[in-house]
Amino acid sequence: MSSFIVAIGRNYAAHAKELGNAVPKEPFFFLKPTSSYIQPGEGVVELPRGTVVHHEVELGVVIGKPGRDITPDAAFDHVAGYALAVDMTARNIQDVVKAKGLPWSTAKGFDTFTPIGPFIPKSSIPDPTRVGLHFSLDGQVKQSGLTNGMIFPIPQLIAFVSSIMRLEEGDLLLTGTPPGVGPLNPGQTFKATLTYPELDGPILSSFSF
Amino acid sequence: MSSFIVAIGRNYAAHAKELGNAVPKEPFFFLKPTSSYIQPGEGVVELPRGTVVHHEVELGVVIGKPGRDITPDAAFDHVAGYALAVDMTARNIQDVVKAKGLPWSTAKGFDTFTPIGPFIPKSSIPDPTRVGLHFSLDGQVKQSGLTNGMIFPIPQLIAFVSSIMRLEEGDLLLTGTPPGVGPLNPGQTFKATLTYPELDGPILSSFSF
Ligand SMILES: [Mg+2]
Ligand SMILES: [Mg+2]
Ligand SMILES: [Mg+2]
Repeated sequence: MSSFIVAIGRNYAAHAKELGNAVPKEPFFFLKPTSSYIQPGEGVVELPRGTVVHHEVELGVVIGKPGRDITPDAAFDHVAGYALAVDMTARNIQDVVKAKGLPWSTAKGFDTFTPIGPFIPKSSIPDPTRVGLHFSLDGQVKQSGLTNGMIFPIPQLIAFVSSIMRLEEGDLLLTGTPPGVGPLNPGQTFKATLTYPELDGPILSSFSF
Repeated sequence: MSSFIVAIGRNYAAHAKELGNAVPKEPFFFLKPTSSYIQPGEGVVELPRGTVVHHEVELGVVIGKPGRDITPDAAFDHVAGYALAVDMTARNIQDVVKAKGLPWSTAKGFDTFTPIGPFIPKSSIPDPTRVGLHFSLDGQVKQSGLTNGMIFPIPQLIAFVSSIMRLEEGDLLLTGTPPGVGPLNPGQTFKATLTYPELDGPILSSFSF
């Protein structure tokens, strides 16, 4: 299976602004290697020497049915379900490569840079604009945002990505992070949580590292 | 298997210069999705609407033994063999994203953007610095370069990439392109050829689209 992780950047206006970036007029994405996955219980998330690692809690969309040039109307037919994920980012490396016009792969691609929770079937989240995404560090809430803040909703994202490359079963689409990103320090414990419906709804997924 | 394509940028000084880029002081890479592979006989290479697609003929290194933090001395133990490949690039998209500090994934990731020939066992290329890489368009030679022109040789590339992410069996490392890149136009036929040893040696691999 040719699985990959395709991650959308700056898909929440408040997050784009907190990093001093313009709000994009069309979606853009980068690829993360599947070697960056780490599931709860598999070990620790690396903070590589010399890096400033930021957390970005995100809703992951798991593709269930392959397709190219998928229309927004048909997009949910291609979704098998969801997963809670964190798009770890070596922010200092990203700042350097952005300034130089270089690819983002190093900043986003270290092993363990995509912590991910268990698969959530599509039926558990009938309306993916009402998902709450939360991230806390040593018990202190850092991110807490609703997926209705996405600039480009899931159908548009699937249409855009699949206009460039064929999606396959098992591919993961990371849909961007709400505001509140910041650094992780050695020894800190973090917790990611997905609630539905809304920010104060029942917990559908939660994991700690 | 978590296969990916990791592609090194600007690894031949003459190619970096032909695009007006600085010669890098350390390697950098980007990821291509494995969905971009196309093998001879599988169809045509896409020239997506609105794109200016450049050819970059490259030596691909196929990983045979998994590893992280591989030393340059041990690098060839992790190599199973080689493949001739073309790193197709939507140059106009790449120019725009470079200027904006955005990721390169779209420019490099379209379906069919990694034409690739059959596997060449390591034993057929005892010295990978003596490989000839050739690309012709409608019978006219556009690229013809020797792999001894690499700024960072294969052991350094494997050490660099594996310092960031674990390599697995089947992963492909594209090692950069010699000078002579340029656009493909609709209706043109191209041919990529790998010779060994040297530019005028026997043909080990060749394919046309
Ligand atoms: Mg795929
Ligand atoms: Mg992100
Ligand atoms: Mg290239």
